[in-house]
Amino acid sequence: MTPRRIPRRGSVGAVGEFGLIRLIAGWMRTQPRIPGLVKGMGDDCATLLVRGGRAQLKTDAAVEGIHFRREWAAPGDIGWKALCANVSDIAAAGGRPLAALISLELPPATPVAWVKGLYTGFVACARRYRFAIAGGNISSGPHIAIHVSMTGEAPRRLIGRSDARPGDLVAVTGALGGSEAGLAALQRGWRDPAARAEIATHLRPQPNVRAGQVLARHASAMCDISDGLVADAGHVARESKVRLALVPGAIPVPLGAAALATRLGTTSANLAMASGEEYVLLATVPRRCWKLAKAAAEKAGAELVAVGEVRRGRGVAILGPGRPPHGYDHFRRTA
Amino acid sequence: MTPRRIPRRGSVGAVGEFGLIRLIAGWMRTQPRIPGLVKGMGDDCATLLVRGGRAQLKTDAAVEGIHFRREWAAPGDIGWKALCANVSDIAAAGGRPLAALISLELPPATPVAWVKGLYTGFVACARRYRFAIAGGNISSGPHIAIHVSMTGEAPRRLIGRSDARPGDLVAVTGALGGSEAGLAALQRGWRDPAARAEIATHLRPQPNVRAGQVLARHASAMCDISDGLVADAGHVARESKVRLALVPGAIPVPLGAAALATRLGTTSANLAMASGEEYVLLATVPRRCWKLAKAAAEKAGAELVAVGEVRRGRGVAILGPGRPPHGYDHFRRTA
Repeated sequence: MTPRRIPRRGSVGAVGEFGLIRLIAGWMRTQPRIPGLVKGMGDDCATLLVRGGRAQLKTDAAVEGIHFRREWAAPGDIGWKALCANVSDIAAAGGRPLAALISLELPPATPVAWVKGLYTGFVACARRYRFAIAGGNISSGPHIAIHVSMTGEAPRRLIGRSDARPGDLVAVTGALGGSEAGLAALQRGWRDPAARAEIATHLRPQPNVRAGQVLARHASAMCDISDGLVADAGHVARESKVRLALVPGAIPVPLGAAALATRLGTTSANLAMASGEEYVLLATVPRRCWKLAKAAAEKAGAELVAVGEVRRGRGVAILGPGRPPHGYDHFRRTA
Repeated sequence: MTPRRIPRRGSVGAVGEFGLIRLIAGWMRTQPRIPGLVKGMGDDCATLLVRGGRAQLKTDAAVEGIHFRREWAAPGDIGWKALCANVSDIAAAGGRPLAALISLELPPATPVAWVKGLYTGFVACARRYRFAIAGGNISSGPHIAIHVSMTGEAPRRLIGRSDARPGDLVAVTGALGGSEAGLAALQRGWRDPAARAEIATHLRPQPNVRAGQVLARHASAMCDISDGLVADAGHVARESKVRLALVPGAIPVPLGAAALATRLGTTSANLAMASGEEYVLLATVPRRCWKLAKAAAEKAGAELVAVGEVRRGRGVAILGPGRPPHGYDHFRRTA
């Protein structure tokens, strides 16, 4: 039986499901060998070796028109970001990504070249974070949707959102605002050099898995900033039954994003507090662990910056510059 | 802080994402406690204990208009089947389902009551097969799409599609044709008692996980029948580099499906060979293991029926009634 030659141009509909699967297998040949992946493509399910036997599970989706637009992002960017959203969640739980499954919906008219570009982004992300693309599924659909599920290896000490305690410091592992500024620039058609760095931040987020792993040893609670600092702080506050008090002026903002904030008629702090899809980590750290946590994060390539503190109560409080919280000066100097 | 009361009627758009998530948490309260689920909803990712450390991973999707139609199936049926498609793949690899992640796309106008029905089906399936719904994701979208990923516990001896050997018997764990007959009845608006059993087969498939587990010890290769017997036999043939010879007359067909075949102007055997989404297992069994395999399957509540044999060559051969394969009579009597 001679395998039928698959056309590499044209639409997904012309190539067909099984033709596309064979092309994908080719595009993925450059992904690194993951020793724990016992069985991959070609069987009913993949089998993965999870050391310690504690697997982390996460699913997230990127839907055309909701999460991305083909006119704003190259297919490689879209693939990278769809996987990174999951990498970031594994990192936020202190784990290490092991394997991803990718369930796609593609309209029959989607160009094969575009799907190839998408897989370039998938494979680049898998190589960067050293996990396997263990399997997937392709379905026809009215629009492009990328549903990713990721398996990670849990850290020895599990960390979640529910153990923040009053007195802990609230910290972030990087500057905020770039993603929202980049999105705003895309929406407004700004493509000048000043906007370019922020657009790159929006399209190619860089979760820091190593920082998540080391912070899991020192922090009381952790999550990633995907909905925006205030919204995600709210999730931690609700799960931990505490209040997170944030000091807007303490939030680090990239220079370019600060400049765009002015152009957008807002303040850097407001931009930073609302900016979603940052994939920076938000951690609450007991004060006695702060120095260790900060040093460990630095070794992992992340600057841990204190932006508030945990208090009794509920919800998120935004503290004005004239009303520093009790004991706040201390960690502000530390940061 | 008093939690806002969430309206339980109306559309998903009116309830909002976070309102819907809280409703879902309530609907899932009846799911069984899975001791291995260390962390579930409310954190960035779920954590699962996999005994032996070998996790199986699988993803599959049910897309409105492609895999289901709301006018043909109740939301509970759609939820049941979306999860069962994954249960079946875990079973086909000899494993045991542990946890599912559900990534949904819902148009804002979707009635909340419909989503509740969907979760009734999810929870019913999780209870029946004793796995956890460990997490999920909700996105807005132009149509309803249910992307499921499932984690299973791998059997001690891994089984796939690539080890079928010439001389092995080809067997199925149940009757075929009911799903296709049920779909045809739905398409034609037949709702008479004769069609009802087949419609139920189509809408509420019943994968046999136990049969998959015991057959994994005796079979050389295994897969589930989701694309149709001939198509799935073709997958095994390709992966194992052998030919699967099938005897149409040996394939068990439910009485109702046979009757519908006549009404549809086809033969029972043709219906049975083409019928997809059966979620019956296809196994290749070395002849020396046949008696043991058959007895073990029976204990697991499945009748193992020989429908062909593995030969040298490639692809799938359909054997006419006048040309029984060498050695075929033997296992035909056995079956």
